[in-house]
Parts: sequence; structure tokens; C-alpha cells
Amino acid sequence: MKTSYENGRDLLERLHGGHLGERMVNELNDVCPDFVDMTLEWALDGIMNRPGMDLKTRELLLIASCVTLGGTAAPQLHAHIDAALTMGAGKEEIVETILQMLFYAGGVNVSNAFRVAKEVFKQRNI
Amino acid sequence: MKTSYENGRDLLERLHGGHLGERMVNELNDVCPDFVDMTLEWALDGIMNRPGMDLKTRELLLIASCVTLGGTAAPQLHAHIDAALTMGAGKEEIVETILQMLFYAGGVNVSNAFRVAKEVFKQRNI
Amino acid sequence: MKTSYENGRDLLERLHGGHLGERMVNELNDVCPDFVDMTLEWALDGIMNRPGMDLKTRELLLIASCVTLGGTAAPQLHAHIDAALTMGAGKEEIVETILQMLFYAGGVNVSNAFRVAKEVFKQRNI
Amino acid sequence: MKTSYENGRDLLERLHGGHLGERMVNELNDVCPDFVDMTLEWALDGIMNRPGMDLKTRELLLIASCVTLGGTAAPQLHAHIDAALTMGAGKEEIVETILQMLFYAGGVNVSNAFRVAKEVFKQRNI
Amino acid sequence: MKTSYENGRDLLERLHGGHLGERMVNELNDVCPDFVDMTLEWALDGIMNRPGMDLKTRELLLIASCVTLGGTAAPQLHAHIDAALTMGAGKEEIVETILQMLFYAGGVNVSNAFRVAKEVFKQRNI
Amino acid sequence: MKTSYENGRDLLERLHGGHLGERMVNELNDVCPDFVDMTLEWALDGIMNRPGMDLKTRELLLIASCVTLGGTAAPQLHAHIDAALTMGAGKEEIVETILQMLFYAGGVNVSNAFRVAKEVFKQRNI
Repeated sequence: MKTSYENGRDLLERLHGGHLGERMVNELNDVCPDFVDMTLEWALDGIMNRPGMDLKTRELLLIASCVTLGGTAAPQLHAHIDAALTMGAGKEEIVETILQMLFYAGGVNVSNAFRVAKEVFKQRNI
Repeated sequence: MKTSYENGRDLLERLHGGHLGERMVNELNDVCPDFVDMTLEWALDGIMNRPGMDLKTRELLLIASCVTLGGTAAPQLHAHIDAALTMGAGKEEIVETILQMLFYAGGVNVSNAFRVAKEVFKQRNI
Repeated sequence: MKTSYENGRDLLERLHGGHLGERMVNELNDVCPDFVDMTLEWALDGIMNRPGMDLKTRELLLIASCVTLGGTAAPQLHAHIDAALTMGAGKEEIVETILQMLFYAGGVNVSNAFRVAKEVFKQRNI
Repeated sequence: MKTSYENGRDLLERLHGGHLGERMVNELNDVCPDFVDMTLEWALDGIMNRPGMDLKTRELLLIASCVTLGGTAAPQLHAHIDAALTMGAGKEEIVETILQMLFYAGGVNVSNAFRVAKEVFKQRNI
Repeated sequence: MKTSYENGRDLLERLHGGHLGERMVNELNDVCPDFVDMTLEWALDGIMNRPGMDLKTRELLLIASCVTLGGTAAPQLHAHIDAALTMGAGKEEIVETILQMLFYAGGVNVSNAFRVAKEVFKQRNI
Repeated sequence: MKTSYENGRDLLERLHGGHLGERMVNELNDVCPDFVDMTLEWALDGIMNRPGMDLKTRELLLIASCVTLGGTAAPQLHAHIDAALTMGAGKEEIVETILQMLFYAGGVNVSNAFRVAKEVFKQRNI
């Protein structure tokens, strides 16, 4: 049976591709290796991997949260738009998710989020 | 054909029940009646009523945003948990939506959001 | 010549009435009397009392900031709507200031701010 | 009679110059053309164009909100400082507006906002 | 050897007293029992219980974060001021911690935080 | 006896080195020289210089606040991690301070803060 760490790594790879997984582990491993473990075991295996809701919907919810957090979450917004598309979301669903935030996160954050989405769409040629 | 205002009123009633619709119109009508119109025409008919995403998912996204906004959006969180249930979401989906915010909105906001969810579940006897 | 503390007290009284000034000094004086001094000398005499902009406009700017901060600033929003009216702002200017925040502070904060404005208008019978 | 979209375009041009208007429409037109329409019809014609408050004061209020939102609104802060100057605000009024936020938005956001103002002043040679 | 859950329960009791521990487990246990486990195993045993920094300093850091989060974290601010005092912090250290936030969290949040501190000091008769 | 301005300058130099002090004074001196004075007299001499808490702990509290504020405070986070190290904090204390924010500031802000810490550690070769 796999450990929680291994389940987290598998899910990270499934959502973001092996490349991002490697980069993430390498990037913060020398500053705080325990934080890398927590991200894999708690955020990925502990929360994201739970039953009761599919991964595409979970990614759309994270997009909603990142748009609401605003500029501080721009790198995470990029990663979750990409992961939502990988999990089967269409371009229209991404656009509707961001637009739905207009009267909650405000127009500034929605406008900035569309710029991030535009980048991801361009990178994936969609 | 219905006006945008009427479509907004219809959707408000469908999501929140006629009682809340009446209260909302009456409550701010003497302070800023134009804001009531904007809410119905822009937020409800203009955004929420769009094709491309079902109302249940839209309500879950608004819950995600309200949890991320924190205490300032507590009344709106209450209303959208209620509306998500009306649109067919199960109790488990509400719980997973809130829990999914843990590493984004933070534990303080998630903990407070569960207290709001508990109230709504109690009011609906679920 | 008056001290900075005295100028701050005078301005506090002019904006909020003597009653609020007394309450404010008494309320936090036993927890952190230096913070009361800082508020009077820095925020009131040091910033608010500066030339280059009239007090009514300064109060409208503080209302804009309080609406943007959201629920955490609800007591301050109440005080500054009241002070803006005292400084000669009309009800319409208060309403336009709050509404102007819609695509910046978001609909949640604007909606909650109108509820606060409604209270102040009621207390002043306007 | 002009449509709301046309009124919004006219106001955008008046506040930010034709160049920014073109860039804005072109930039997000392929991601979400409806959001461009909403910005013009709702935010510009629907809110900004309302009677009851002059455009210079509205721009100062938006600066106050952008300073309070912090880094997430840095591009918008730049645009609104520029628009406020176009609407007749002096350099001193911009500085006072930002400084007035010190005890509300905090010193971090005020300090960063002055850096943005410095850029705008430099671009306009004032 | 104790489980992570038991270590979390022990630390919760040490910081907040057995009464709060019971209330917390009972309050959210029917909404989301897994969140109670996560709080004990992740936030308390996983983070708070780590070596490298004493509990009093950790509590002061949490007070700083709660003041910065503002009103949304008012119940948590109350609990952490209380826990910091239990861990040996003096009244002066609490006051200095809150005041230190003035140019970061802003005067609104600092002012509201002092009101919370005043309540805790009163409850403990200090 | 030194003036408050001079005390603030001395403390700025002690915490951040003479180079940063010069840069700060020069950078905003042409936009708003009064803001430079306020920073030195109020934030540095008025708050940071107070008795009742050592400078290292004050710097750790500011790190906690900057992590909680998120991306808007990234330059300040960099400066305060550097100053905390200058005041005698070890690398482990910086890491624990940031990690302690996980359930308050959220994982997005903690993750971004570790990237800033990594930069500071690299610049200081630690």
C-alpha cells in the first residue's frame, strides 16, 4: 500500500504533470523540506484526494478561491487553470468560473485573472 | 419577452425563495434603489443566468469565494449554502467545498464557514 | 500654541462630536493609552489635519477605504459616514461613494456598506 | 441616441485616452468579449457616468480603493492616478489621497502606492 | 506512544484548557469530523508542536496574523491572546504585539484588536 | 538629545543597514517627503523603538504580518527577514515563523513567502 506522501506525489503528477512536481519538490526542498511533505500529504492526499467531489470541480473551486485572493495567488491561479483543463474542463467553464467572481472578488481581480487565463490558453494552444 | 430585471427577479426567487427576494428589494430600496436593479440585472440575470455552467456549480463557486472573503461575506455565505442545497447539492458537497478551501482561504475562514454551514443545515433539518 | 494632541482632540470633536471623543479616549485608555495618543497626534493631527485637501473629501476617501476593507471596518465605516455628513456631504454623495466601489471592493462589501449607511441615515433622520 | 456600450467607450476614452481603450478591448476580447462589454456598460456607463458626483472625485475614490486593495490592484492604481490627473486633480491631491490611507490600508500599501504614483508623475513629467 | 491526534489534544488542552478542547470537538464534530482531526493532527501536532520555537512566541506570531486578518479572525484572536498569557506572556507583550501591527495591519484592525484584548484581560482579571 | 527623526534613522540603519536607509529616503523623498519623516518618526522611533519587546521578536512579528498580507508585502517581507537575521534570528526561526502561518495566512501565502526567504538566505549565503 502506498504512503500518503506517495499518493500526494501521484496526484500532483496527475494534475500538474511530472515536470511541475519535480520543480516544486526541488524548489522548496532546501528551505523547508517539511513544507513539501505537508503539501503532498495534507493538501494533496489529505484534501484534494478525498471522495465526495470530482477533481475537475475541486480545481474550479480552487480557481474561484485564487481569483478571490487576487494577485498574491497569481502563480497558483495559473497552475489550477492548467490543472482544471487537464481534468477535462473546457475553456468556457474556465471563463465562466472567473466571470462568476465579478460581484464577489471584484472587477480588478477578475480582470487580472483573465490575463492569467489568456496565458494558459496560449501555452496550451486553445 | 421578459426584461432583464424580471429575469433577475425570477432567478432570485428560484435560488433563494420569494421571501428573501422581497426582503432584499425592500431592505435597500430606500437607500439605493439603483443598486437593487443592478443586483438583479447585472449579478443575477447578467452573470448567474448565463449558459455554459449549471446553477449548482455556480453556487458552489460562490461558496468558495465567500469562504475566501471570510467574515465580511458571512451573510452571503449563508445565502449561497442555502441556494446550493436548493439547486440540488448534497450536504457532502457543501462540506467538501468548504474543506477544499483550507490551504487557500486558511483555517480561520474554513472554521468560521463550517459554523455558518451548521446553522443552514439546522434550519433545513438536514 | 496648541500641542499636536490638543489639535487632534479638537479635530476629533469637530468630526465626530465630543461624545465619541470621550468614549474613544476612555475605551482604550486602560489597555494602551499610547495608542490613543497616536490616534490623535498621528492619524488626526498628522494626516487628517493636513492642508491640500478638504475634510469632506478626506472623509469620502475614508469611506471608500472602509468599504474596501469590508466587515472588519464596519464600526469605522459608520463613524466616517456620520463625519462626512457633518462635514457637509449630502446623502447622495455618500450613496455615490459606496456605489462607486462596486467593481473594486465587490458587491458583498457594497451591499453590507449600504446597510451601515441606512443605519446612519436613520439615526440622523435623513 | 448612443447605446450604453458607446457611452462607456466615450468615457473610457475621456478618462484614459483612446490608446488604453483600444488596448483594453483588444487584450481581453479573445478571452471573454462579454467582460469587455460589461466593463464598458456596467462599470463605466452604469457607475462612473452617474450624476451626483464629478469624475475627479470618483477617480480619487478609486485611487483610495486601489491603495486599500494593495498589490493586486497596482495596474488599476496606475490607470486611475493617470485618469485623476486628466480630470484635473493636482499632484498634491494625488499625494494627499494616498497618504490619507495610512491608518486604513496600512503603511505597506501606502509605500507601494507612492512608488506607482512616482512612475505616473515621471511619465507625465510632473 | 501517543498518536498525532492525542498529541494535538494534549497541546490544545495545554494552550486553551480542557473546556475549549471539548467545545471545539463537539461543535464541529457533526458538520465535519475530519476537520476536527485535521486541526488536531495538522495545525496543533503538525505545526504548533514543532521544535525550533517556543509556544509563547508561536502564540504571539498567531496574534500578529489574526490582527492582520482583521475581523474575520476575531474569535481566534481572543483564543490566542488567552493562550499567549497561559504560555507566560505578560500583558505588556500582548499590547506591544498588537501595537507593532499598526503600519502593517492598519489602524482599523489594531483598534479592533485592542477591544478584543481588553475583553480577555477583563475575563482574566489582569 | 537626538530628535525622533534621528532616532528613527539610527534604528533604520541598525536594522537594514545604511544602504537601505539611504535608498528609502531618496526613493520617496521627491514624491512625499513627509511620508519619509512619518516612517522614521512614527513607525521606526514611535513603534519599533518602544521598550517592552526586543527587536528580534518585533521583526518576527512583522514577518508574520507580511506573510499574512501576502504578495502586496513581498518587498517588506524580504526586508524584515533580512532584518530579523541581522537582529540575531537563526534560519530555523525564520522558517518556523513562516510555517506557523499555514493555517492562518493560507498555503498560497506561505509557499510564496518561502520563495522570498530562499532569496534572502541565498543573498546572505546561509
